[in-house]
Amino acid sequence: MNKSFSLLMLLCFVYSCNSNKVDFAIVVHGGAGTILKKNMSDEMELAYKLKLEEAINAGYNILEKNGSSKDAVEQTIKILENSELFNAGKGSVLSNKGVVEMDASIMNGKNLNAGAISGIKTIKNPISAARLVMEKSEHVFLSGEGAEEFARLQGLDIIDNEYFITETRLKSLLNAKKRDSIKDNKFGTVGCVAIDKFGNITSGTSTGGMTNKKWNRIGDVPIIGAGTYANNNTCGISSTGWGEYFIRNVVAYDISSQIEYKKISIDLAAKNTLRKVKDLGGNGGVIGIDKNGNILMDFNTEGMYRGYKKSDGESEISIYK
Amino acid sequence: MNKSFSLLMLLCFVYSCNSNKVDFAIVVHGGAGTILKKNMSDEMELAYKLKLEEAINAGYNILEKNGSSKDAVEQTIKILENSELFNAGKGSVLSNKGVVEMDASIMNGKNLNAGAISGIKTIKNPISAARLVMEKSEHVFLSGEGAEEFARLQGLDIIDNEYFITETRLKSLLNAKKRDSIKDNKFGTVGCVAIDKFGNITSGTSTGGMTNKKWNRIGDVPIIGAGTYANNNTCGISSTGWGEYFIRNVVAYDISSQIEYKKISIDLAAKNTLRKVKDLGGNGGVIGIDKNGNILMDFNTEGMYRGYKKSDGESEISIYK
Repeated sequence: MNKSFSLLMLLCFVYSCNSNKVDFAIVVHGGAGTILKKNMSDEMELAYKLKLEEAINAGYNILEKNGSSKDAVEQTIKILENSELFNAGKGSVLSNKGVVEMDASIMNGKNLNAGAISGIKTIKNPISAARLVMEKSEHVFLSGEGAEEFARLQGLDIIDNEYFITETRLKSLLNAKKRDSIKDNKFGTVGCVAIDKFGNITSGTSTGGMTNKKWNRIGDVPIIGAGTYANNNTCGISSTGWGEYFIRNVVAYDISSQIEYKKISIDLAAKNTLRKVKDLGGNGGVIGIDKNGNILMDFNTEGMYRGYKKSDGESEISIYK
Repeated sequence: MNKSFSLLMLLCFVYSCNSNKVDFAIVVHGGAGTILKKNMSDEMELAYKLKLEEAINAGYNILEKNGSSKDAVEQTIKILENSELFNAGKGSVLSNKGVVEMDASIMNGKNLNAGAISGIKTIKNPISAARLVMEKSEHVFLSGEGAEEFARLQGLDIIDNEYFITETRLKSLLNAKKRDSIKDNKFGTVGCVAIDKFGNITSGTSTGGMTNKKWNRIGDVPIIGAGTYANNNTCGISSTGWGEYFIRNVVAYDISSQIEYKKISIDLAAKNTLRKVKDLGGNGGVIGIDKNGNILMDFNTEGMYRGYKKSDGESEISIYK
């Protein structure tokens, strides 16, 4: 190695340390709602934080090893789906009929490809089914038994609906039926957005929907533009909140379109959009990453399980406001 | 009546004649695709035009008698659903399993209320089911058997799936199965946007989806933001085209958001959005009305069944480019 080359290397090293450039990043949510410190034991709080950390690190490690944001988002969400703590996969809330009906979606910001599934009952990891719809079908959105048939043909793990059901969610359903309303039920969702070293953004969201939901209700999670959106030129977004209000406000795309058309920051765009949701009577939160690696975590509820990790060393895991 | 009052009346009359003010308006589409003059008999062309005219007039008459745009859109779409000519209601295309599975949605621009249903097989008029979801449920989007149960409870007409099936669509399915692809199948949809005397915009869309569709595929039609969007502050939009590309581009809301954030006309906004659809490899068309009563009818296919009528006397019914 000659002297001038060594000097160049040193300069590059110093520059990369100073510029704080974000090569890759990942952000995660585990649902927003009436999450209050006073109602949470120290053990539960720790359990949530450890699981969020585990999920974030799984995705981060993929990104660090030059992996794609698609792989990072899928693996991160699978960990949250496999945990009973969150309303997605195992631990999903129960419908009015006492079964788990799950929705999920994923979008690739590089080519605007997207996949979504709704009302599935026997696919262990709904986010993987959504990804297969994106990559292995001519469609974007499959539902119910058709979606399950497709996932089976693609070789995904099929599992009995009983697997998803937990005692906690059974109790919630009984309480909700006593109240006979969906209004007071805390909503939950899991979601992840990642940007990889190649500048590709992927967003994914997965949920069991609302406790006591009826009539094969579909929320915002599988709706591209509402629950999930990704575009390398703007940002990636994953929503969690009162789905009906998020659909009516086209939340995820409304944030992206403000970045594109108003040239404002992801933070300001999200503030504007969440205000629209609130003005209509809804609430919830959003996470996102813009094309420069800036992280968004915003919500108008008491809390949102959330966290992020960036290649520049910054990270955070939080629950309350 | 005194002299000055008469003069005022006269001035108002002259002003209203000159300003060409649009008090109310309605626009309709019956699907876009490979619709070529050379493949159309004079009889069929006349049949399409007469049915479009009948549907437009039904809605127009409601608006003229101070009716709401919600009523106008529902009644207009019902006429198109009840006709075998269009891919919605009776005359819907057949899924891979040889049944009719219909999607529809409606949105009220006054309060951003919305209703949508997908995968229904036994509701005579899907647009009416979507409206009931909007007005009589806490949800926005219901699907499959749950949506049918809801519609039944609301007293809607239930009808055997056989009712919807026509010989023409059976032949199309057989042809599509021979080709084993969804790519070459002309898509069809019906849609309507209206603005009433009170400035309220409603948009609605209804379809049987794509011939030979599998796995309970959901297209753009029931997706608020993609197939349908309405906002009194911007515009109302109904889409028709290759649904997957319309979902990925969040077509209906992309037009509205450009009006809101870029302050451009509905025509220019639609042009930008349809170009995005084309750049990804998709095609189709959109209709709409902005808050000032300006009519949009644009498409990048060979034809689109379409027409409009405005309170200032302007009207048009067309099929080809």
